[in-house]
Amino acid sequence: MRIVTQKKLHTICQSMTDRSVDVVLVTDFERTRNASLRYLSGLPTDAELLLFADGHTALIPWDLELAGNLAEVDEILNPLDFERSYRKARAYALSSRLGQKFTLEVLTIESYFEVTKFQESFPKANIICDPKGIGYAISKARRIKESFEIDIIREGCQKTNQLIDMIPPYIKEHPDCREVDFALFLETEMRKLGAEKPAFETLAANANRSAQIHNYPTASTEPLAKPGLALVDFGLVWKGYTTDVTVPMIFGKLNPTQQKMIDTVQRVHDLAISRIKPGALAHEIAGEVIDVLKSQGLTMPYSLGHGIGLEVHEGPGLGLKPTDSSLLKDWMETPLEEGMVFTIEPGVVDSQHGGTRLENDVLVMNDGCEVLTTSRALRFP
Amino acid sequence: MRIVTQKKLHTICQSMTDRSVDVVLVTDFERTRNASLRYLSGLPTDAELLLFADGHTALIPWDLELAGNLAEVDEILNPLDFERSYRKARAYALSSRLGQKFTLEVLTIESYFEVTKFQESFPKANIICDPKGIGYAISKARRIKESFEIDIIREGCQKTNQLIDMIPPYIKEHPDCREVDFALFLETEMRKLGAEKPAFETLAANANRSAQIHNYPTASTEPLAKPGLALVDFGLVWKGYTTDVTVPMIFGKLNPTQQKMIDTVQRVHDLAISRIKPGALAHEIAGEVIDVLKSQGLTMPYSLGHGIGLEVHEGPGLGLKPTDSSLLKDWMETPLEEGMVFTIEPGVVDSQHGGTRLENDVLVMNDGCEVLTTSRALRFP
Repeated sequence: MRIVTQKKLHTICQSMTDRSVDVVLVTDFERTRNASLRYLSGLPTDAELLLFADGHTALIPWDLELAGNLAEVDEILNPLDFERSYRKARAYALSSRLGQKFTLEVLTIESYFEVTKFQESFPKANIICDPKGIGYAISKARRIKESFEIDIIREGCQKTNQLIDMIPPYIKEHPDCREVDFALFLETEMRKLGAEKPAFETLAANANRSAQIHNYPTASTEPLAKPGLALVDFGLVWKGYTTDVTVPMIFGKLNPTQQKMIDTVQRVHDLAISRIKPGALAHEIAGEVIDVLKSQGLTMPYSLGHGIGLEVHEGPGLGLKPTDSSLLKDWMETPLEEGMVFTIEPGVVDSQHGGTRLENDVLVMNDGCEVLTTSRALRFP
Repeated sequence: MRIVTQKKLHTICQSMTDRSVDVVLVTDFERTRNASLRYLSGLPTDAELLLFADGHTALIPWDLELAGNLAEVDEILNPLDFERSYRKARAYALSSRLGQKFTLEVLTIESYFEVTKFQESFPKANIICDPKGIGYAISKARRIKESFEIDIIREGCQKTNQLIDMIPPYIKEHPDCREVDFALFLETEMRKLGAEKPAFETLAANANRSAQIHNYPTASTEPLAKPGLALVDFGLVWKGYTTDVTVPMIFGKLNPTQQKMIDTVQRVHDLAISRIKPGALAHEIAGEVIDVLKSQGLTMPYSLGHGIGLEVHEGPGLGLKPTDSSLLKDWMETPLEEGMVFTIEPGVVDSQHGGTRLENDVLVMNDGCEVLTTSRALRFP
């Protein structure tokens, strides 16, 4: 069954009508995944969806049977009727409803090659692509969670919290574990709790590796419990919806710089959470956090947070306003709204003293927010 | 360190020069992964690479430190010098070497939006995109494995074979296991053997689900050992390189149709392997297999095989020649060459009797091929 509500679908189609768009193409394939296909059609994988401005939906799936079982659309095209060519099936579906002259909107992630191929086969079609267009309209719908989605996310966060609680006993029993052992422990336990899978590769970084921005590999064969600042960043998929937390781990006594890093991250984490309410601007909260960190001489090399849902990184983003004029042109400010679910994950890195990050998942409420996860710094002797 | 050899890089650059291309853009980001970045630069993740026709390489990484540690390129641009804007860094790197008028080639997977944005900022630049162009040249380099790559793939296949051998004792000890338990067992054991991670989500399908083409979920909470045809499709990543096998599993006594499916799949599997040698055409081997299956009234709903390496699906593909004229225009025939590594995975599905697939990984040798994995039908009482 599709996830989008009738009301939200109407709003999405209104955004098409307002901009004279006749049809939108949404694709989800191995090379470029896009959960909006699932959101709009119910089919979780491997298909193209044409969404017409009148709300009509035509699906071209790779697997007809799976689509028959899971999709909620007006029309399913059999790929075998079109020599397994999406181009051919798409051309049929479009021309039979719209003829040759129409406006097609594509998402910014569509492939340059396929879009130019399309233009060649429909030379009279007008193709538009705008980050403030349909992609934004769909993202806006997805980022305000319905109550049934919030129920699922709450369940996933509860399971995530159970995993956080398993960390201290595991470390006590396995003081010599390697990063990979610890990551595998969490990924195994989350499945035992009923999660579908990890939301992303579990990142475990000891004191030697915690200052890295992109840990590669995500978990190494080094021992986890080196003295200093370590962290684990993990999440799970629960009934299609992701969670994402980072737990700071402190091994042994910290030096004053490390203690300041831990304390300041906790402080800006709490500060950010205190600022969350409908109408607050995402980039202003991020800016306030960055200012506090800067005043302490600390550096945060990533953004303050990101939406979670069908994907582990979705809208809203909690980054700074871009300074580059080209990026600024595509940027839009994000007032927080009730029903948004996103991470708050301030962190700092220092090449000498390591890095730390505290990440929790929050739900925007009508008068503030609810923190759904229970990540906090864990201390080990 | 980059993987591409000097000789192969020269061949790739020659293909640029031959087609008057000045520079190629290769990107690898979360939304659209592309291991060619790692292949050409050594950096496994999150960067843009500009490859100039004279062989000069300029890298714009997200994480400067990681790039400093892992990349082998002529030039690394610091993203912080460009307000973390790839567009800005790319514009600088291009204009400083080529001015405003040049020919840029992009891969077919590049985003339509970014390419059109680029064209706006470099209106005098000529942009080309051709599936038979640079993407094919890089794929050709990647698909012929060097001896150090083959050594790694052999190791990965040995570990995969150890996992196959663990299946019978596991099933004997866990006759009531669910699909998810079995999948988790394999994914846990592969890490204990030292694999980086699963190459893809392990697919476990019991007799009820084995006829599905795309199993969703990949492993369910149904019991695995239902009477009939089941299968498990799994692979691991070993030092960056993937393996991929499917093991047919037979529970109880088969009916004559199921027995014919198992026997015929084994027969076409062996037939395909007997045809592999340098110069053999991939689509002709696939065609021969399909013809045998058709003569038995059986249907194979996917292609006969695909290359493996840094990605689990890479060149060469072992599909049929497309019949749709648009796809045919982009298609090229693939003569097999020594050093190619790919899967042979014939399978058949029947909505009434289930499905089966036998998949092994093979290496093309100068006079035939070597089968690197030991997948075979496993029978359980």
